[in-house]
Amino acid sequence: MNKYAIGVDLGGTSVKAGVVSLDGKIINQISIPTEAEKGPETVANQIVKAIKEVSAEAFGKEIVGIGVASPGLVNLDGNTVEAPPNFKHWDSFPLRDTVFKGLANGLPLLIENDANAAALAELKFGAGRGEDDYLFVIWGTGVGGGIIIDGKIYHGPHGGAGEFGHGSIDYNGPQCNCGNIGCIESYIGQRYLSTRATKYLENKKESVVWKLVNNDASKIEPQVLYDAAMEGDAAATEIMSEAGELLGVAISSFMNVMNFDLAIVGGGVSAAGDLVFTPMNKRIKKSVMAPLRPVARAIPAQLGNQAGILGAAGLVM
Amino acid sequence: MNKYAIGVDLGGTSVKAGVVSLDGKIINQISIPTEAEKGPETVANQIVKAIKEVSAEAFGKEIVGIGVASPGLVNLDGNTVEAPPNFKHWDSFPLRDTVFKGLANGLPLLIENDANAAALAELKFGAGRGEDDYLFVIWGTGVGGGIIIDGKIYHGPHGGAGEFGHGSIDYNGPQCNCGNIGCIESYIGQRYLSTRATKYLENKKESVVWKLVNNDASKIEPQVLYDAAMEGDAAATEIMSEAGELLGVAISSFMNVMNFDLAIVGGGVSAAGDLVFTPMNKRIKKSVMAPLRPVARAIPAQLGNQAGILGAAGLVM
Repeated sequence: MNKYAIGVDLGGTSVKAGVVSLDGKIINQISIPTEAEKGPETVANQIVKAIKEVSAEAFGKEIVGIGVASPGLVNLDGNTVEAPPNFKHWDSFPLRDTVFKGLANGLPLLIENDANAAALAELKFGAGRGEDDYLFVIWGTGVGGGIIIDGKIYHGPHGGAGEFGHGSIDYNGPQCNCGNIGCIESYIGQRYLSTRATKYLENKKESVVWKLVNNDASKIEPQVLYDAAMEGDAAATEIMSEAGELLGVAISSFMNVMNFDLAIVGGGVSAAGDLVFTPMNKRIKKSVMAPLRPVARAIPAQLGNQAGILGAAGLVM
Repeated sequence: MNKYAIGVDLGGTSVKAGVVSLDGKIINQISIPTEAEKGPETVANQIVKAIKEVSAEAFGKEIVGIGVASPGLVNLDGNTVEAPPNFKHWDSFPLRDTVFKGLANGLPLLIENDANAAALAELKFGAGRGEDDYLFVIWGTGVGGGIIIDGKIYHGPHGGAGEFGHGSIDYNGPQCNCGNIGCIESYIGQRYLSTRATKYLENKKESVVWKLVNNDASKIEPQVLYDAAMEGDAAATEIMSEAGELLGVAISSFMNVMNFDLAIVGGGVSAAGDLVFTPMNKRIKKSVMAPLRPVARAIPAQLGNQAGILGAAGLVM
């Protein structure tokens, strides 16, 4: 099995490219700057450069194809990418065709939204192996997701399915940046969660959190809350536990409507483990409809920040 | 085109069966009692009886097959039906096979959940013609639904997809009968809506509603609210408008996650028309993500209470 695929994880800061074996091992990996501020042509060039660089290191190996995981909306044409956040001068750009021409090697090249690629990575190599249908959630700065139906990424009528962070859990809730009210992201996305926590902790000066941030409220973020909770701090535990439960609310609603029994949750904040998964699963068991109760559950993603490269490579396997 | 299908709409009170032309016209129709209190064997017999009766009237016409729309969970085996509400002594029952044997005519026979069948009816003969993907909502006693993906009913991993009424719009909301909190059904399902309205009207004795129900609070229901609103009553208008908006909240969340741009809304309460659809659409336009805003909309279903028979017949067309 001397066959490999190249996976590219396009981020706002760096382009990561890796050579991936068919069983999901990254055998070598490089990273170069994205230069996202210079516009899409430059970014496409950087992707080409990264692919060529990592290919050179894979000399003598058979490459079956190349996949790129990109932020933003990847249109159903599999070519144009719209408005990736934090990329300048980028409205709509034919990323796939531009990279394909730049490479000029004729290898199969596929592009996929980054959250969808991560959902696919878990399916092929991670927590989703052997599953046909699940909701994948990335809980980090924001709350994103991907939907796997019948063992395939579900793209939806316009290519943008999986925006799980923008389902509302409270029609009287906080305003979300997206325009909607009470989106789950507006409760537990890293920035929002930090703000909520800071407010909650204002009158709890005894909390370990304040010691950990040297009384600097601007430094309160999920990692600190996690550390404080691990030291047994009640307030931090409560905040993280509530965040887990709220995600459970949103997951349950999705499960009820779609009849799903599995959510795979990754992303930075999810690294808090049981602290968030226990209340999340407790809520899911309570809130899903009776027939789903014995089987419904949320489990941690397994691939961490390798999911982008692995999912991208998985596109062409 | 002298071909027809028979559609059966199984309800808690009556079994309706109709002979349906391939272009969706019911050319004759009969109705007999369900006898739901006597258990599934009797109900199956009544279905057989209804089919035979309506077939006799269709003498000389070619029948391509028979479809049955049933309440409850229709398992993925297309045979067993679980726990239809208001049916006695019914846990899990092989409805399809029992009816098939009872008919003994060898014609193709398919069974589908009633909400899914209604969703399919709209696809083939109603408001969903030409559409590939939409959420179908039945807004009546409860709030139910069906999901059409790529021009087909989406059943989900366990056959129970489309329980749209049990997505939560407020994690601090009212307790729903299903066990979850803040389900859209627990706000706008007919019974819940009546209770909410009654409470809201307690201190609004000047409302036309009280005249229409002769001060009998137990008679406050959506039809009365509609009548009062049509007479210009401010309180009734507000209640119905809020109900429409709340349904818009739930629809928007679904659209954001699934990338859908269309909801077709039927059922008794939806007959209030603009009174509920205008605030519903206003909320949808506000709450869906930017790329969906130009296209997202909710429109009324077209087939009313014929949807069951038509959708059932549509299963075998």
